[in-house]
Amino acid sequence: TQQLLLSGRTPRTKPFRVTNADRSVKKGIMADTLQDLMNKASDSLSVQCASAMLLDEDGTGVDTEEFFQTLLDNTVLVVLEKGQKWTPHPNSPPRDQL
Amino acid sequence: TQQLLLSGRTPRTKPFRVTNADRSVKKGIMADTLQDLMNKASDSLSVQCASAMLLDEDGTGVDTEEFFQTLLDNTVLVVLEKGQKWTPHPNSPPRDQL
Repeated sequence: TQQLLLSGRTPRTKPFRVTNADRSVKKGIMADTLQDLMNKASDSLSVQCASAMLLDEDGTGVDTEEFFQTLLDNTVLVVLEKGQKWTPHPNSPPRDQL
Repeated sequence: TQQLLLSGRTPRTKPFRVTNADRSVKKGIMADTLQDLMNKASDSLSVQCASAMLLDEDGTGVDTEEFFQTLLDNTVLVVLEKGQKWTPHPNSPPRDQL
């Protein structure tokens, strides 16, 4: 995984796993840019108006293309609509215990 | 991650995760210097006047560029405004239990 981080600057089509605010649906989606992923996730998860993309693990907002490009293959993201909030995953232990 | 530490002296744009004093918002931000991160975090988190950047895990103040350059990719930092204080993460177990 270290290689991916270091080589992650050039847009490359990568697999992501995107879920919705209540984590009732999760989809595997290929995307090369943040906007591409937002569009495809909105379609795939029937999200009306996607407003934010966050890391499932700790709710970090992925707002910039630069940061998006550092994400590893199969990173799990949560897509939110306006008014929705990220909540910690109910089945996850605190990060420090992993 | 060891490789990153050893090569970390030359400013390199790295991903960080920055949160605010009450940890209500967290953003993924790319930055190459401490000042760069302070500026971008202030914008991204709507912090009026950032006064300090601390490690989320234990409240260590990151005051110098040299120390900043040793931080690993995706280190979680807390940006504080004047008068705000770092508090231990509410969901973390005491470090001794790790």
